[in-house]
Amino acid sequence: MRQRFPAVLSRPFTWEVSLPAGADTSTRPTPADTTWLVGAVEEALRRFFATRRETVGNMGPVVIEAIEALQNFVLRGGKRTRPAFAWTGWLGAGGDPDGPHAPAVLRACAALELVQACALIHDDIIDSSRTRRGFPTVHVAFEDQHRSREWGGDAGHFGASVGILIGDMALAWADDMVAGARLDPAARARFTPVWAAMRTEVLGGQLLDIHGEAEADDSVESAMRINRYKTAAYTIERPLHLGASLADADPALITAYREFGTDIGLAFQLRDDLLGVFGDPAVTGKPSGDDLREGKRTVLIAEALRRADAVDPAAATLIRTRIGTDLSPDDVTRLREVITGLGAVDDVERRIADLTDRGLAALAACSATPGAKARLEAMAVAATKRVS
Amino acid sequence: MRQRFPAVLSRPFTWEVSLPAGADTSTRPTPADTTWLVGAVEEALRRFFATRRETVGNMGPVVIEAIEALQNFVLRGGKRTRPAFAWTGWLGAGGDPDGPHAPAVLRACAALELVQACALIHDDIIDSSRTRRGFPTVHVAFEDQHRSREWGGDAGHFGASVGILIGDMALAWADDMVAGARLDPAARARFTPVWAAMRTEVLGGQLLDIHGEAEADDSVESAMRINRYKTAAYTIERPLHLGASLADADPALITAYREFGTDIGLAFQLRDDLLGVFGDPAVTGKPSGDDLREGKRTVLIAEALRRADAVDPAAATLIRTRIGTDLSPDDVTRLREVITGLGAVDDVERRIADLTDRGLAALAACSATPGAKARLEAMAVAATKRVS
Repeated sequence: MRQRFPAVLSRPFTWEVSLPAGADTSTRPTPADTTWLVGAVEEALRRFFATRRETVGNMGPVVIEAIEALQNFVLRGGKRTRPAFAWTGWLGAGGDPDGPHAPAVLRACAALELVQACALIHDDIIDSSRTRRGFPTVHVAFEDQHRSREWGGDAGHFGASVGILIGDMALAWADDMVAGARLDPAARARFTPVWAAMRTEVLGGQLLDIHGEAEADDSVESAMRINRYKTAAYTIERPLHLGASLADADPALITAYREFGTDIGLAFQLRDDLLGVFGDPAVTGKPSGDDLREGKRTVLIAEALRRADAVDPAAATLIRTRIGTDLSPDDVTRLREVITGLGAVDDVERRIADLTDRGLAALAACSATPGAKARLEAMAVAATKRVS
Repeated sequence: MRQRFPAVLSRPFTWEVSLPAGADTSTRPTPADTTWLVGAVEEALRRFFATRRETVGNMGPVVIEAIEALQNFVLRGGKRTRPAFAWTGWLGAGGDPDGPHAPAVLRACAALELVQACALIHDDIIDSSRTRRGFPTVHVAFEDQHRSREWGGDAGHFGASVGILIGDMALAWADDMVAGARLDPAARARFTPVWAAMRTEVLGGQLLDIHGEAEADDSVESAMRINRYKTAAYTIERPLHLGASLADADPALITAYREFGTDIGLAFQLRDDLLGVFGDPAVTGKPSGDDLREGKRTVLIAEALRRADAVDPAAATLIRTRIGTDLSPDDVTRLREVITGLGAVDDVERRIADLTDRGLAALAACSATPGAKARLEAMAVAATKRVS
């Protein structure tokens, strides 16, 4: 199963960028600062979990333990990418970080991390992933518990069952956190349809992904559609849109944010695809050529196959039969050469450059505040630039 | 795995009861009529699904197909138990079925069916159930699709993955349906914490259930706690509470509804447990002694074991070793005799009678309208009475 979704958290991609000289610093520096935001999001999540203590406590130690696993998962780490885009989108549309609405907006942005917790926990079950961020995945932790306590029944099925329910809890609580954020009613009404679209799109994107995998659909079009919903809409476009909706941004700014978010989100995923095949293990933290071993159906591979089918049937056969198998370093080198020789890497680099240019142009022309523009540009460059 | 949750839909238990003579008929008869309510809930659900068409359609045929499976599942049948309690709770607290709030209240009540869809779809994965209401369960339908189209990978894992995502969609859409119900803001604010508690409780109840199963916890206390959260709170107590909150009921009425709902919900589950062992297949629609074959950890079995451990170790061993195995009709007869001989059936009947009396007393003493009281009493009697 492809792991695009988790990859957003596991790649060496950081929002820790310095603002370019001359950027607008008229807004208070702290809330535009990544460290501040990560800490503020985590504090909001911690406080939200505290509000659940009574209900959960009444149900006894089994439920308390499951919720502690969820809380640890949510607070353990992560770059808080979606809250960062939502918050920056709000600032850029005129949100005042010192104003009376800021705390509620921050809580609503932080709730994105609970949607993400559900997505990751359920995705790890779907992908049969056993570790995340250096820890056992949630379903594996409960599978291990079952095994170590020598309980009855199938440990793997037990772990998956607990993981399904903990993910459900995270999804329900995401809505509870928005409901309890104390947004003013007008802001809440603007936020709601965007929030609904985002949740539907990410789940739809995951459905597309597992269907593409099962059907062995290796078309560029299919891979791009999955990227659009599973990565671009969910990670950048809709979070920016959510932030803009809270600030009551005008429709032109919302359109620009969404264009920027879609283009940069797609470019980010394409960069991630290249790193998955050509990245330096010292930088990516993953074995060299890992995506080839896992057989991920990326745009890069789809483009290579499209070209090979037209001009080099032997190369097409090589790619189709070898990816997703236990490759030696020499196999990886050979596949890289074939993919590069077909021109697929140049094609993907061109797509990244075009998407990034187009996204940055939409950003440059929009009415967002200079400070937010500078930050979003820096985030876009960090997400899409060559690493090796 | 116990199947209490699904059982609520599969037992021969109907709200189609006639109002006792002398019941208040001052409210318009139609909205208090079960047939009307079932049709109105289904119409509200159908309209909600129509609002999703554009977002889903943009994502292409794979997502459309998944959502059609969800829609068919939700609209195929079911007694709309939770909406019926919520709506009756609202009427009983003074809600006016001809008033301006009624359509929004109806939509919010109908949204309970989407929470229930998630619960059932995910529960069927957890319980490895292959049919529901005479159709393949959602995950099995997609498993069958995978197999018939000869796709790659494991068909069972594919079906479970699609089922997880469709259940997630239902859970997210439940909140979307409430958000789009157009409740007035004050009613929405009262509704929200009850809605949150209900979702947390049912998921907590399911966690307790699968833990109890894995740990082989056969205590009466454990079985009662699972019944409390997984059945009583989720099926009756919180739906009534939701309806009351929408009508801005006074705290005394809410307390009475919750007492009634908890007691009748527990009594209903205990009756269901008895039917699962002693019910007539012609009435229950399930093979005789089905719960014994499935090895459900009910209060009935827990009580039998508690008594056997104290006075009849051979009976305890018989129960522990035989339930959950492939029992012959003679085995079922023998186990029934042992359970009855230990006094567990009388004990559970006594619990049912006590709970029902207490619940009905709370109802009788409360300030609900006479029409709603009569209907709730009839629903309580239908849910808890002897069938055989």
